[in-house]
Amino acid sequence: MANQKEDTICAIATPAGNGAIAVIRLNGPEALLIAEKIFSGSTRGKKIKQLPGNTIHHGYIKDNGRVIDEVLLALFRSPRSYTGEDMVEISCHGSLYIQQSILQLLIRNGARMARPGEFTQRAFLNGKMDLSQAEAVADLIASSSEAAHRVAINQIRGGFSEEIGNLRKHLLKFISLIELELDFSEENVEFADRQALRKLLLGIQRQISMLIQSFGTGNVLKDGIPVVIAGLPNAGKSTLLNVFLNEERAIVSEMPGTTRDTVEDQIHIEGYLFRFIDTAGLRHTEDKIEMIGIRKTYEKLKHASIVLLITDAAEPADEMINQVQALGLDNKQKIVLLLNKMDKTDAPAVMQKARAAAGQLGIEVIGISAKQGIHIDQVKRALVNSVQQEIQSETGIVVTNARHYDALQRAYAASERALTGIGSGLPGDLLAQDIREIMHYLGEITGEITTDEILGNIFANFCIGK
Amino acid sequence: MANQKEDTICAIATPAGNGAIAVIRLNGPEALLIAEKIFSGSTRGKKIKQLPGNTIHHGYIKDNGRVIDEVLLALFRSPRSYTGEDMVEISCHGSLYIQQSILQLLIRNGARMARPGEFTQRAFLNGKMDLSQAEAVADLIASSSEAAHRVAINQIRGGFSEEIGNLRKHLLKFISLIELELDFSEENVEFADRQALRKLLLGIQRQISMLIQSFGTGNVLKDGIPVVIAGLPNAGKSTLLNVFLNEERAIVSEMPGTTRDTVEDQIHIEGYLFRFIDTAGLRHTEDKIEMIGIRKTYEKLKHASIVLLITDAAEPADEMINQVQALGLDNKQKIVLLLNKMDKTDAPAVMQKARAAAGQLGIEVIGISAKQGIHIDQVKRALVNSVQQEIQSETGIVVTNARHYDALQRAYAASERALTGIGSGLPGDLLAQDIREIMHYLGEITGEITTDEILGNIFANFCIGK
Repeated sequence: MANQKEDTICAIATPAGNGAIAVIRLNGPEALLIAEKIFSGSTRGKKIKQLPGNTIHHGYIKDNGRVIDEVLLALFRSPRSYTGEDMVEISCHGSLYIQQSILQLLIRNGARMARPGEFTQRAFLNGKMDLSQAEAVADLIASSSEAAHRVAINQIRGGFSEEIGNLRKHLLKFISLIELELDFSEENVEFADRQALRKLLLGIQRQISMLIQSFGTGNVLKDGIPVVIAGLPNAGKSTLLNVFLNEERAIVSEMPGTTRDTVEDQIHIEGYLFRFIDTAGLRHTEDKIEMIGIRKTYEKLKHASIVLLITDAAEPADEMINQVQALGLDNKQKIVLLLNKMDKTDAPAVMQKARAAAGQLGIEVIGISAKQGIHIDQVKRALVNSVQQEIQSETGIVVTNARHYDALQRAYAASERALTGIGSGLPGDLLAQDIREIMHYLGEITGEITTDEILGNIFANFCIGK
Repeated sequence: MANQKEDTICAIATPAGNGAIAVIRLNGPEALLIAEKIFSGSTRGKKIKQLPGNTIHHGYIKDNGRVIDEVLLALFRSPRSYTGEDMVEISCHGSLYIQQSILQLLIRNGARMARPGEFTQRAFLNGKMDLSQAEAVADLIASSSEAAHRVAINQIRGGFSEEIGNLRKHLLKFISLIELELDFSEENVEFADRQALRKLLLGIQRQISMLIQSFGTGNVLKDGIPVVIAGLPNAGKSTLLNVFLNEERAIVSEMPGTTRDTVEDQIHIEGYLFRFIDTAGLRHTEDKIEMIGIRKTYEKLKHASIVLLITDAAEPADEMINQVQALGLDNKQKIVLLLNKMDKTDAPAVMQKARAAAGQLGIEVIGISAKQGIHIDQVKRALVNSVQQEIQSETGIVVTNARHYDALQRAYAASERALTGIGSGLPGDLLAQDIREIMHYLGEITGEITTDEILGNIFANFCIGK
C-alpha cells in the first residue's frame, strides 16, 4: 500500500456530464511538476513549485502548444491539502470533451487514473482523518435527507471517533496495569483493581450496547423511516397518502432537483425521510387473492417503525381498540390512531371517547379529515416526535455503518468474556488478552488497527475523484 | 439590464447529480458579505472582506450554528474574476442535499438564483469579454469533438473578434474622412479617395463572404459531417458501417464516458465528428415500399458532404461510372468510390481500370474489403482530407453561430449597396450611411452594438451556473 503513495493520481471530481465548470484533481509527489508542464498562465514568472499553497491562478492548459482550455488552477501544498500531499485542482469548462482531454494529457505526463476513493484513502494514510471519518465522506455524498446528512457530518467531524477513542483510552490504562502485574508475577500483586476494572467494563459495555442499538435507527435515518398506513377498507388510507404527497410536493418543488418521481411514497418531513407504505384494507375475507394482500400487510406491519392506523371517526371506540390489538405489533413500534372523517361527526365527543380508550394502550389519537386536509400537520408532528424520541441516545451518536456495527458486536462479545473472566478470577495474562481484543475491534472502527483488505473494501465503494 | 447588476447571484456551477465535489458560485456586490455570514474557517482572524483575492480558505458552512458542510472557499476580488465582480466559489461535498442546502442558505442571506448564463452576461457587461467570446463559452461547453472544440476555443481567445474588429477599424477611417467632406461640403472636396474606398470595400466584402461560406463548414463541424454510404443492394454498405463502428468503439473506449450508445452512427476520426448514414440499396424497382426507401436515399444524398459509393470490385468499370452519375450530386459534394470485395478479384487490374474511368470525373478510388477490414484506414484518411480541404480558409476562422451568420449576410448586403453607390457617384452623406450600416452589423457580432433583446436571447440558451 505504502509505495502506491509514490504515484501521482488524477480524476474528475465533479459529477459526470456537461455543466458550467468541472474540477479535475491531480495529487501526489509529481502534481506540481505535471501542472508546470501543461499550464501556462498568471504565475508572475514563477514556477508552480515556487508558488504558495491555497492560491488560485488563471491561465491555459496546453497540449504541445494547442490550447485545450482556459482554466483556474488551485494549488495546495503538502501538508495543507485534503490528502496531505501536494495537490492541484484544475477548474475547467464543463464539457465532457475538455474534461477527458485534460485527463488524458495528465496521464500522458505521468499521472495515473485514481482508483475510487483513493484521494480519501491517502488522506487516511497520511493521518488527515481516521477511518470512520473517511467512511463518513462517502455517506455524506450519498446523504439525501437532513437526518442522514447530520449523522454523516457528525461522523466526519470526529464525534464517533472521539467516543471510540475514549473507550480505548480507558482500556489501555488497565492493560498497562495488568501488564505491570505480569512483570511482577512472582510477587503476586494486583496493580489493576479488579472491581474497578469490572465497573469500567460494565460502563464500556453499556456504551457499546447503545451504539449497537443505534444502528437500527441509523439505518432507518439513512434509508427512510418505514411508516405503514393501515386500516379497514375505505377508511381513507390512500386519501391520506395523497394528501401527504401533494403537500410535500409543493414544499419540495421550491428546492429544484430534489424531486424523485420514481419513488412516489418517500416524503421528507422536517429533515427526516419517511417511507410511506399504503396497505390493503384489513378485514376478514374468504377471497384467496385478498388474503394474500392482507398477509403482505401484516408482513409490512412487522417492519414498520410507525403505524398510522386510520379509522372512521363514526366507529365505536372499542371497535377501534380491537383494530389496534389486531395489528399484533410489538411494543417498540409506535402506533398513532387517526380518526378520519372528523368533519362529519360530533368531533369533541368522539375524541373524548377514543382518547379514553386509547389511553389504556398508551396510544396517541389524532382527529383528522384526510379529504379536507385537516390536522395533517398534527400527524406530521407525531411522526417527527416519534423519530426524535428514538434517536435521543446518551451520546447523540448514531452508528450507520455495517462494518462498525460488526466490530461493535465483536467488541461486546469480548467484553462479555472479560467480565466472566473477572468473575471467575481469570489470571491477568488471559484477562489482558480479552481486553486487547475489545481494543482491537474498537481500533478497527477508527482504523488504528487495519489491513489492506479492510481498506480495499472500504474505498472500493467510493466514487472516483473523492 | 444595468440595475440587475446590483443583485448578488448564486448557482450550482458543476453538472447536476452526486459526485465527489460540487462548486457553488456566489457573485456580486454582496458576495463577500454573504460569505462572511455563513462561513467560519481558517481566515486567521480576518474578515473575508480583508482577505486577498485568488486565495482558498478551508472551513465550515454553518446555518445558525448547524454545520452543513466542510468546504473550501475560493475568493476572487473585483476586477480579477470571471465576471469582473466580487466572486466566491464554494467547493463542497457533491451531495445533492448539501448543494441544495447551501444554495437555499445563500438565498436566505440575500442572494438570488442566477438566470441561465448570467455570470457570463455580467462578464460581457463588465467588459471582460465581447459578445462573440461569450457565445463561444456556451459552444465550448457543448463541444463534443476536437474540431468543434477548436473552433470554440479560438473564438473565446478572440480570433474572430479581432477579425471583425479590424474590418470595422478600416471602415471607421473612411467614415471619418467622408464626414470631414460633409463639413466642407460647400467646397466640394473629396478627402476620402473613392477608388481607395472601393478597393477597401471589395476586400472587406471578400472577407465577409469567406466568413459566410465558412458557416456551412462550421455547422458541419459542430453537428457532425454527414457521410452517406450508398450503393447497390448487397454491395456491403452495412458491413462497412459496422467495421467503422467496431473500430472506433475500441478507440473511444479508452476515453471513459464518451461512448454514446444511442447515436450508433456517429464516429470520431482524428478529432472530427462524422455522421454516417447507411441507406437503402439503389436499384430500379416496382415495389412501392422499396421505392419510398430509395427516394429517401436520394433525399439524404442531397444533404451529404461526402458520399462513400460502395461497389462490387467484380463489376465492370463503366457500370461503376454509371452509378456515380446516377447519384445526381452537385460538384460541392465529395464522392469516394470504394471497390469492395477486393480480396476476391485480380486487384491491380481492377484498380487500374476503375482509376482510369473515375479519373475523368475527378473521383478518388479506394479498393477495400469491408468484411476483412482491409484499407479502412485509407477510407478514413480520405474522409479527414476532405474536411481539412474544406476548412482551409485564408483566416482559419470558422463561423458556427446562426446569429453571426445573419449579421454577416446583412453586412454583405450593405457592402453591395455601398459599392453600387460608389459606382454611381452617390453623395458622401448617403455613402456614409451604407458604410455605417456595415459597421453596425459587424458590431452586433462582437456586441459593440447590442440591445437587451439580443442579449436576452443569447444568454437564455446558456446553462445555469455559467
